[in-house]
Amino acid sequence: MRATIITIGDEILIGQIVDTNSTSIARKLNAIGITIGSKLSIGDTAEAITEAVTSAMEQNTITIITGGLGPTKDDITKHTLARIFHSELRYNDTEGEHVRALLARRGIAFTELNRGQAMLPECCTVLHNAHGTAPGMWFETPQGGVVVSLPGVPFEMEHLMDDEVIPRLKARYELKSIVHSTLITRGIAESILAERIAAWEEALPHHLHLAYLPAPNIVRLRLSAYDVEGEVTKREIEAQFERLHAIIGDNIVGMEDASVERLCHDILTTNNLTLAVAESCTGGTIASKFTAMAGASHYFMAGMVTYSNEAKCDILGVDADLIAAHGAVSQEVAIAMAEGARRVAHADYAISTTGIAGPTGGSEAKPVGTVWMAVATPQGTRAVLRNAGTDRGQIISRASAYAIEMLYDELKKR
Amino acid sequence: MRATIITIGDEILIGQIVDTNSTSIARKLNAIGITIGSKLSIGDTAEAITEAVTSAMEQNTITIITGGLGPTKDDITKHTLARIFHSELRYNDTEGEHVRALLARRGIAFTELNRGQAMLPECCTVLHNAHGTAPGMWFETPQGGVVVSLPGVPFEMEHLMDDEVIPRLKARYELKSIVHSTLITRGIAESILAERIAAWEEALPHHLHLAYLPAPNIVRLRLSAYDVEGEVTKREIEAQFERLHAIIGDNIVGMEDASVERLCHDILTTNNLTLAVAESCTGGTIASKFTAMAGASHYFMAGMVTYSNEAKCDILGVDADLIAAHGAVSQEVAIAMAEGARRVAHADYAISTTGIAGPTGGSEAKPVGTVWMAVATPQGTRAVLRNAGTDRGQIISRASAYAIEMLYDELKKR
Repeated sequence: MRATIITIGDEILIGQIVDTNSTSIARKLNAIGITIGSKLSIGDTAEAITEAVTSAMEQNTITIITGGLGPTKDDITKHTLARIFHSELRYNDTEGEHVRALLARRGIAFTELNRGQAMLPECCTVLHNAHGTAPGMWFETPQGGVVVSLPGVPFEMEHLMDDEVIPRLKARYELKSIVHSTLITRGIAESILAERIAAWEEALPHHLHLAYLPAPNIVRLRLSAYDVEGEVTKREIEAQFERLHAIIGDNIVGMEDASVERLCHDILTTNNLTLAVAESCTGGTIASKFTAMAGASHYFMAGMVTYSNEAKCDILGVDADLIAAHGAVSQEVAIAMAEGARRVAHADYAISTTGIAGPTGGSEAKPVGTVWMAVATPQGTRAVLRNAGTDRGQIISRASAYAIEMLYDELKKR
Repeated sequence: MRATIITIGDEILIGQIVDTNSTSIARKLNAIGITIGSKLSIGDTAEAITEAVTSAMEQNTITIITGGLGPTKDDITKHTLARIFHSELRYNDTEGEHVRALLARRGIAFTELNRGQAMLPECCTVLHNAHGTAPGMWFETPQGGVVVSLPGVPFEMEHLMDDEVIPRLKARYELKSIVHSTLITRGIAESILAERIAAWEEALPHHLHLAYLPAPNIVRLRLSAYDVEGEVTKREIEAQFERLHAIIGDNIVGMEDASVERLCHDILTTNNLTLAVAESCTGGTIASKFTAMAGASHYFMAGMVTYSNEAKCDILGVDADLIAAHGAVSQEVAIAMAEGARRVAHADYAISTTGIAGPTGGSEAKPVGTVWMAVATPQGTRAVLRNAGTDRGQIISRASAYAIEMLYDELKKR
């Protein structure tokens, strides 16, 4: 079973936004056994939409479209789909009332343009958008396929995929499984890795497809199988990866894309442990990574973004003399911050970061990118110095990742 | 002048990675006057690549391809392009030596697989990749167009675009300009905004295309013009936006990537004022927005992510009885948090948020999405209740935006 994903919007074609919708849709479709044949991004013109949708309908069974469903003149997806399916737009009372109520709650007047959002092609099944003003639409094609149109606002699209599209696709088609599994390796170049595992790769059965995905210091190995029996194939892939442990065991980090913060989240939750964070250069990024996960309130006691020296002293109880003697970016202050955070927040574990995110503030001894990180635990405190790069955004993101890795190492040791 | 961008890789089609390369390429091409007709993502098969490239060559003058140039067996772009252009692969000494030297510097042996990376189609112009092991390739098509193949590693692709592809395209084709300009509005719903500026929109000249780009509490208005004289059109667009100031002046935040936090940042910096943040439901997001901006250390005193009630009391000095009497999500606690943050961090201004980010924790009286926000200033403290939505990510992002707006309103009042 194959699908085409079409994302509509000039903002994608001119590079004003990164298209994350198609990534999320691809993942959700793969998870129920639907293969993506291709992804296409086009502009907001009736010609481009008509050509892309009719050609997709001919090539694949399923077409998922996002974008162009807003209330303004540049939103033409709905009108174009109505023409493709030779259908008239008609006012849908239920959706109209929903939009009216939704806007009322936010104190916004219901206008003629909003009324237009409840004008829907007669021939489609309306997919109720509980979280926004643009409903989704489900069209049946003459070839026995479906064309689904969803709003481009990411979280509205996500909810509609989960609540409406995926259940309907599962009910409508008999789907086999797609299995992807990824093993993460560290500290081995792609070409060397390929040589080391050449015999293993050569012996893979034909239905398991291997892909190498390199990133700085990391190579991910993915095995994929399409149109298979899920459970059997999962076990088969597990067994194949198991063999790699004998060949490159020291370089294996783990499986899939489970983030290190998610691994920490799980350990903290399961063991009723608590966490506090004291951030200087990472400026709240570590706290926001944890608190983005539902359930974080069970263990996340407090995060303190102590940017100024005064805040480090007043909030975390760092000794001002320590800062004067060693500077704010130092092992001593990183340790005092982590220990202060742990004490102030009554937490079992605490992470701290203090560094120079740039672009200014660097020196020869402590160039931009210098970051001290510490983890305070019930067993003691450990600090590490890293250089996190040269670009402010990169430094914040790498330093956050390094610090969360340090916490994970400590949590694993328990 | 039109281009097609093709990104190759199963990892894109299965949603394992977000395709940022095509966004960056689109931006760079637009900047020199090349319009993107469409963007296409396909898998690592010779059939898909052949079909996509030959069809793109027929449709548009320029085709830019990324991905599939690595050293391993799943990388087949180069072989497929050689077949499309009826060309043989031949070892390129210069590129071979470059790869050998690059690997040597990283302490990696030069293998047969790396040698393969210097095997290049005879008919192409080699684009030297100073930052990686996979060279780019520039092919001339029989139709007078070009097909360019670039590695998928983002920073390698970026350097090749900037150093090789863009200069060559500018030299090769006579290009007119594309102008995009974006005005950012806040605090006005897309449909209301569209009504307010309907007459202005109606009167826009035909060659200026208007797009509405909504985001939490923000709508961006973009005017685009293609194949124009750049400087003249830039002034024309400026004049058009100037007229909007008379209609929706209060809602205008600024141009391009202006943000409310940037406006606050500027006011705080210019006036030597300081800021502290006390976050519950927004979990560090507000702090990370400010600290992402270079120079934030001049005014950002501290951020406190007080998730637990204990942390609210211990760190911010919120009275435990106040929480017991009104609940953590209340006007009283929001005010006490903001005032506590202002006091503890010795800051001139402080923002606080306390709410229910969900998915659990809601009640009839205080459903998921309920957020109290307060801003404490030298003149006093103001609190506001908002419903920030129904989805955790949406609630965090909207509540952060609302709270920063409150701060901005107070800073403007000074």
